[in-house]
Amino acid sequence: MKDRRLFLRRSAAVVSGAVAAALVGRASAEPLAGEPWERVYGAGFTRYGQPSRFEQPVGRHFGQPYGELAPGSGAALSPIEALEGIITPNPVHFIRSHSGTPDIDPKAHRLYIHGLVDRPLRFSVDALLHYPRITRTYFLECSGNSSRALTPQPAQVPAGAMHGNISCAEWTGFPLRMLLEEAGVRPQAKWILAEGADSAHMSRSVPLEKALDDAVIALYQNGERLRPEQGYPLRLLLPGWEGNMSVKWLRRIKLTDEPTHTKDETSKYTDALPDGRALQFTFEMGVKSVITRPSSTMQLAERGFQEISGIAWSGAGRVRRVEVSTDGGKTWAEAALTGAERPRALVRFRYPWQWNGGTALLQSRAIDEKGNVQPVRRDWVARYAPDARFHNNSIVSWAVETDGRVKHVYA
Amino acid sequence: MKDRRLFLRRSAAVVSGAVAAALVGRASAEPLAGEPWERVYGAGFTRYGQPSRFEQPVGRHFGQPYGELAPGSGAALSPIEALEGIITPNPVHFIRSHSGTPDIDPKAHRLYIHGLVDRPLRFSVDALLHYPRITRTYFLECSGNSSRALTPQPAQVPAGAMHGNISCAEWTGFPLRMLLEEAGVRPQAKWILAEGADSAHMSRSVPLEKALDDAVIALYQNGERLRPEQGYPLRLLLPGWEGNMSVKWLRRIKLTDEPTHTKDETSKYTDALPDGRALQFTFEMGVKSVITRPSSTMQLAERGFQEISGIAWSGAGRVRRVEVSTDGGKTWAEAALTGAERPRALVRFRYPWQWNGGTALLQSRAIDEKGNVQPVRRDWVARYAPDARFHNNSIVSWAVETDGRVKHVYA
Repeated sequence: MKDRRLFLRRSAAVVSGAVAAALVGRASAEPLAGEPWERVYGAGFTRYGQPSRFEQPVGRHFGQPYGELAPGSGAALSPIEALEGIITPNPVHFIRSHSGTPDIDPKAHRLYIHGLVDRPLRFSVDALLHYPRITRTYFLECSGNSSRALTPQPAQVPAGAMHGNISCAEWTGFPLRMLLEEAGVRPQAKWILAEGADSAHMSRSVPLEKALDDAVIALYQNGERLRPEQGYPLRLLLPGWEGNMSVKWLRRIKLTDEPTHTKDETSKYTDALPDGRALQFTFEMGVKSVITRPSSTMQLAERGFQEISGIAWSGAGRVRRVEVSTDGGKTWAEAALTGAERPRALVRFRYPWQWNGGTALLQSRAIDEKGNVQPVRRDWVARYAPDARFHNNSIVSWAVETDGRVKHVYA
Repeated sequence: MKDRRLFLRRSAAVVSGAVAAALVGRASAEPLAGEPWERVYGAGFTRYGQPSRFEQPVGRHFGQPYGELAPGSGAALSPIEALEGIITPNPVHFIRSHSGTPDIDPKAHRLYIHGLVDRPLRFSVDALLHYPRITRTYFLECSGNSSRALTPQPAQVPAGAMHGNISCAEWTGFPLRMLLEEAGVRPQAKWILAEGADSAHMSRSVPLEKALDDAVIALYQNGERLRPEQGYPLRLLLPGWEGNMSVKWLRRIKLTDEPTHTKDETSKYTDALPDGRALQFTFEMGVKSVITRPSSTMQLAERGFQEISGIAWSGAGRVRRVEVSTDGGKTWAEAALTGAERPRALVRFRYPWQWNGGTALLQSRAIDEKGNVQPVRRDWVARYAPDARFHNNSIVSWAVETDGRVKHVYA
């Protein structure tokens, strides 16, 4: 609250001193009502609504490495540069899929719990809908997010096309622990294998400790049933961990004594190091932030007040602080935060800035409650092999040019 | 947190003792993967996604008093009986419109501030998008919500068709106060008139005190730009007050010394009393709750564990407590709450119940931080005239019959 008051006071001062006079005009005492839509009866109700036709350009950014050959493989990234607040609307939640979105009939889908359990169990979706529920707001981030910011030259694309493999939703479901306890976990069990019902049978190994801690069987996102591309009718949700471990279209959980080393966690989702070795099972997503406005490919309209705003998150818990620099990291100032009370959820940060028409280098740096600090890009790059492409949580830099154009740069 | 732990402990006990054994089957050690969707490549990415075809029945409930003659007049209510958590997805946020949804071009739309101000001002939407923003989660409720629960006989329709003129979203915009201070409010000004750009020019009078307090100019809902039926490109938002005062498609705000007494606040949106007088300007929405699951027209599948869940809210601030009765109000027990830290937002409540196969009468009762208690139906009815239809916040009753059918009753 202190930050918020401080921020609004600063913002009000900045606005009244700058933008306002330039942006407003004078109006007559009784403004005429003459626009076409004020003279005709409007559209009828819709059972399930859609955005304004003037907002149709806002949609996911496609990354399809195999093109039309496999139009559901790769990623469709959230347009974070066009979004606000914390909640990602379901229609633009990022997608990362290996073999497209399956069209699952919930009446036929089953979830199995088997392996090192006393009682192998099979559940219909209707049965799972009978469990007592919890509602939690969590981010999901693909561990390959921001890999496009590791190319030799900085890509000049919207922020979401590089960093949009991140979304945040209010999930409703119930603790996985309930099902595991019902099945009876044998003492030898130390891991679970979670497998999806897509045709790739995407599967990952998860330590039993996480499965018994905060793992959720999610059935709803942002109030409605899961979207097909988010795992309908049900998915695993592992708060703060690599997105693809939150296995979508979940069809079975096998209790095992060791990790299964599936195809999806050996060649993929491991972190190559400079000495040729690779880190495996680096589950937790690092502390991170990105300025979404202004950002790459945007154009500042005119000098004066400009809110700098973006999103921050940490797999380790709560975001404690976000700092903003407009001079490429020489000096930093604290941003105001919304949503910082929630662990492993997106936080919205805002910082009032006065653009004087000169060049500027915009950066944000997040710090979490465990004291983790978002690293600068050169430190991150030095830590991994040249072809590493997972867990890039390094600081993002946007350069503002004197003509107001905003460019992606490596700094 | 205490409630939450208590609740999960209670729920776990109830589930393991009852539902679980009946609902699960036994599975082979390595379940076969044979469903059709596991054998074919899935669907490609979509820029802007849609729900599963198996969830298409979930949509708004229409209340169109003039039928096809005016298909955008009346209300389209949120299907609260099918929703979860707190956030209402944008496609099913309730609609209350007097003359349909206008198709507004944001490039042409203007907002005027005029009347008792030093400087009449006119703003383009682009100009408003330059203001420093805030993000807040607030409910909106039409003051006519639950009027359908005032018919002589209890309607046997889904909960949303009666009580779904309530929704909750994460709104982003900026304080109205910023614009008013820029225009310079003259000392004589005590009220504002807010008018929409729909063809009905829906308009309401708002005390200046509220306008300077927490009134918001909202541009985004749940992360994306406002939906057309929610006021695109901008609306007023008055937290906790009658929904229609949060004027959609906002085109002007006039500062006045007295209320304007528009057509929308004299014959409509006033509260008829038994003695023939009417209350005017009853802005704040009362403390209220409704059980959404199980609810009217539903059918309990079998005896045993049944989560009772619903939504609660108060225009006066935070919900402090929600109590649930399964015996028509003879005894009450405390429900677990999610989201109770936020004032003037929906709260999700949950209560674990064991249905023994007998009749039951389910009720919920909300209490807010000001000590307001949701009234029983007979007290509410006695307070107003027989044709009163606004501000019905009385306790809702669902009767469970021995065959598991759930019926709407007056109790």
